Amino acid sequence: MTDNRTLILDCLEKVGTEVTLCGFVQTVRSHGKVAFFDLRDRTGLMQIGGFGELAGEVSRLGSQDAVKVVGIVKKREERYVNVQMSTGAIEVEATYIEVISKAAEMPFDMGGKELNLELPTLFDHRSLTLRHPTISPIFKVQEAVVASFRNTAEKLGCTEIFVPTIAASSTEGGAEVFNINYYGHNAFLTQSPQLYKQMLVPVFERVYTIAHAYRAEPSVTTRHLAENTQLDCEFGFVDFTQLLDLLEEVAVGMLKGAQEKSEEIFKQKNLEPIHFGKTPRVTLSEAQEIVFTETGRDVRGEKDLSPQDEVDLSNWALKNHDSDLVIVHHFPTFKRAFYTMPDAQNPEYSLSYDVIFRGIEISSGSQRIHKYEDLYNAIKSRGMDPDNFSMYLMAFKYGMPEEGGFSFGLERITMKMLGLQNVREASLYPRDMERVDERLSARPTK
Amino acid sequence: MTDNRTLILDCLEKVGTEVTLCGFVQTVRSHGKVAFFDLRDRTGLMQIGGFGELAGEVSRLGSQDAVKVVGIVKKREERYVNVQMSTGAIEVEATYIEVISKAAEMPFDMGGKELNLELPTLFDHRSLTLRHPTISPIFKVQEAVVASFRNTAEKLGCTEIFVPTIAASSTEGGAEVFNINYYGHNAFLTQSPQLYKQMLVPVFERVYTIAHAYRAEPSVTTRHLAENTQLDCEFGFVDFTQLLDLLEEVAVGMLKGAQEKSEEIFKQKNLEPIHFGKTPRVTLSEAQEIVFTETGRDVRGEKDLSPQDEVDLSNWALKNHDSDLVIVHHFPTFKRAFYTMPDAQNPEYSLSYDVIFRGIEISSGSQRIHKYEDLYNAIKSRGMDPDNFSMYLMAFKYGMPEEGGFSFGLERITMKMLGLQNVREASLYPRDMERVDERLSARPTK
Repeated sequence: MTDNRTLILDCLEKVGTEVTLCGFVQTVRSHGKVAFFDLRDRTGLMQIGGFGELAGEVSRLGSQDAVKVVGIVKKREERYVNVQMSTGAIEVEATYIEVISKAAEMPFDMGGKELNLELPTLFDHRSLTLRHPTISPIFKVQEAVVASFRNTAEKLGCTEIFVPTIAASSTEGGAEVFNINYYGHNAFLTQSPQLYKQMLVPVFERVYTIAHAYRAEPSVTTRHLAENTQLDCEFGFVDFTQLLDLLEEVAVGMLKGAQEKSEEIFKQKNLEPIHFGKTPRVTLSEAQEIVFTETGRDVRGEKDLSPQDEVDLSNWALKNHDSDLVIVHHFPTFKRAFYTMPDAQNPEYSLSYDVIFRGIEISSGSQRIHKYEDLYNAIKSRGMDPDNFSMYLMAFKYGMPEEGGFSFGLERITMKMLGLQNVREASLYPRDMERVDERLSARPTK
Repeated sequence: MTDNRTLILDCLEKVGTEVTLCGFVQTVRSHGKVAFFDLRDRTGLMQIGGFGELAGEVSRLGSQDAVKVVGIVKKREERYVNVQMSTGAIEVEATYIEVISKAAEMPFDMGGKELNLELPTLFDHRSLTLRHPTISPIFKVQEAVVASFRNTAEKLGCTEIFVPTIAASSTEGGAEVFNINYYGHNAFLTQSPQLYKQMLVPVFERVYTIAHAYRAEPSVTTRHLAENTQLDCEFGFVDFTQLLDLLEEVAVGMLKGAQEKSEEIFKQKNLEPIHFGKTPRVTLSEAQEIVFTETGRDVRGEKDLSPQDEVDLSNWALKNHDSDLVIVHHFPTFKRAFYTMPDAQNPEYSLSYDVIFRGIEISSGSQRIHKYEDLYNAIKSRGMDPDNFSMYLMAFKYGMPEEGGFSFGLERITMKMLGLQNVREASLYPRDMERVDERLSARPTK
């Protein structure tokens, strides 16, 4: 039935011939004896004209109807050429229109240039709103980020690994974990692929993974999701300076590649290109001095960066280094996970780092403790039971080199590349304490 | 410290020069005043020789020690060349050896050509056994399968999507789901990315995803995992015949690509190359006739294929069509998930299909019901509540074309490419009702 289908973008080379198009109705403009609509398929938009009898058929089409159209590809008259559209110099004059699946009446205007909805409405109708031409490109950029991450990791010799999300103990300690009933046993959703990627260093030396990470955050912010996607790397036989270099190489490679792949979307949405001046590297203390000098806010001595500190630091980096990226390192040891290597020069501070991108932390990592005894003691000193980490510890018992790695948050990167206000907008189906597709308030509690 | 490191494979071009190597000790052979060991890094194996004082140091090395070696790359004498090793024509004469991390004594022989362990021991020591040269290549093949799947899906115009694993209702109905305590609400781990990929057809038309799938199977078999990796595609504007063509294109493209990328492993492990004769397509009834004719076992009229049927059918396909793949279609409608399109000619049978590869089902899929009312009724007729599927149903309410797709099981494909006996061997960290890394019998029940 759709055997001889032509894709919209391929019509550019079919002027004067008959084509069969399939897609979704975007907007309908009826002028009596002549009517037009924009048809959308996976390659683009096409203006379809209906004349005479077919004008009536076109005017009865509704937004989001799935249709099949037979027609002739024609050049538009000069004065009707739309330079904003890749197919703006042509149109299709319909000879036959078939509605494959009629859409119900829209609950709001889906045909406008913008989709001005409050977030709850946007997500209540996610199956519909994702189709809007301002929304779907978010996830084409997201796809490009992952593809560029993979390319960069593979160039660095990393093996892609597939690790589980059900674990017998929590990854990092802490209470913010989701519990599963696992055949009558208590199990957890992993807070990160951290322990597994480390366990695989002695196997593949360098690994990467695209992983789900789960955090039962008991609060609602614009920066957190209950389930998110992490882009993780881990490297063996590397020291702290090499790790900082690898971190920067992956961050820049990923963002540059994603921007190049998304060139058209950046143009359409008039997005600010990423600034790739040399990435500054500062310690937490230096970062706090910068915030103080730049803004007068005195955060010196705080144990971590606040969201406002991240914004201020990014402003400084852009102004002084033409860079949208900043690396901050040497966070207090007790603020980081148990597997973080303390700095031998000053063990209160650790060989840890974050990447700040346009005012938000997008990556976190560290050199790891690689000696079995040190790791065993670090687990105990955090009040956890080494018995719950026996497979993890085994990897260190049988020969583990100096190693470390990092993890990027896919949704935060997507959010900041696109200038979105809330990380939920960068997740196809965001989960938080108020929503799993539908609002949880509409459901009975346990 | 490891700044000037050379990778083992790069030593081929460094004969006569000094190199610094890092890696893990594989096997040690001491002959008094001269001792050798094999060093493994992510690029290969290298024989290291220690003479005089260094012979003593080498002889004290143990399997899996993480070490750094400085030495001179030398050509081996003709009679010592090992043609089985890519670096078999050279060796490194050590001048300095440093143990980065000493491994504990091995609980079993890790230096032998084979690792003859029972499965429970293999998995009890997974952090160690994955390092064995017979085990780690399994996951290089697995990586290649995923890379080839992605290539093939992208060539077909699919967008990569990242969909959640926490859901408010079970994907396919049935009791075999894991329950999560989600902020005091009951939620589930998705049995597949099925509903999400379908919801995204009107957005991207063609999508693919690498997903986690969870099944609380209450039994232990050689074919099932509680958490596995699925390779999923979904296509809009396609009919049943086109779906069968797409299914075959993805199956063949993925397996051919993976085999090419894994050429060296296939040679090393002496694996049977995949037979790619034209893939036969048979209905379930035809498949049952074939089993009867070939073996005398009368399974005609059964509602599904048994594991033995799959083996018999594969034998027939290999013998008669030189094909390791068979597509079986038209399974009884009631045996398939609610979203499966019944055949309009005979609604008791459905527009569904499986792919059998070397005696096991590796893929399943169907054309889907795409009309809202039909889907609503299908959900009700299976005794489920359409209210639990409201976001899913919304995608169909607002215009959904004819569509369908399929899903491949990554671990089963890996298993059969490598001739493994149990699907657990094809999972880095297999989960089943008896194990989450450690044996559950060692843990208290809830």
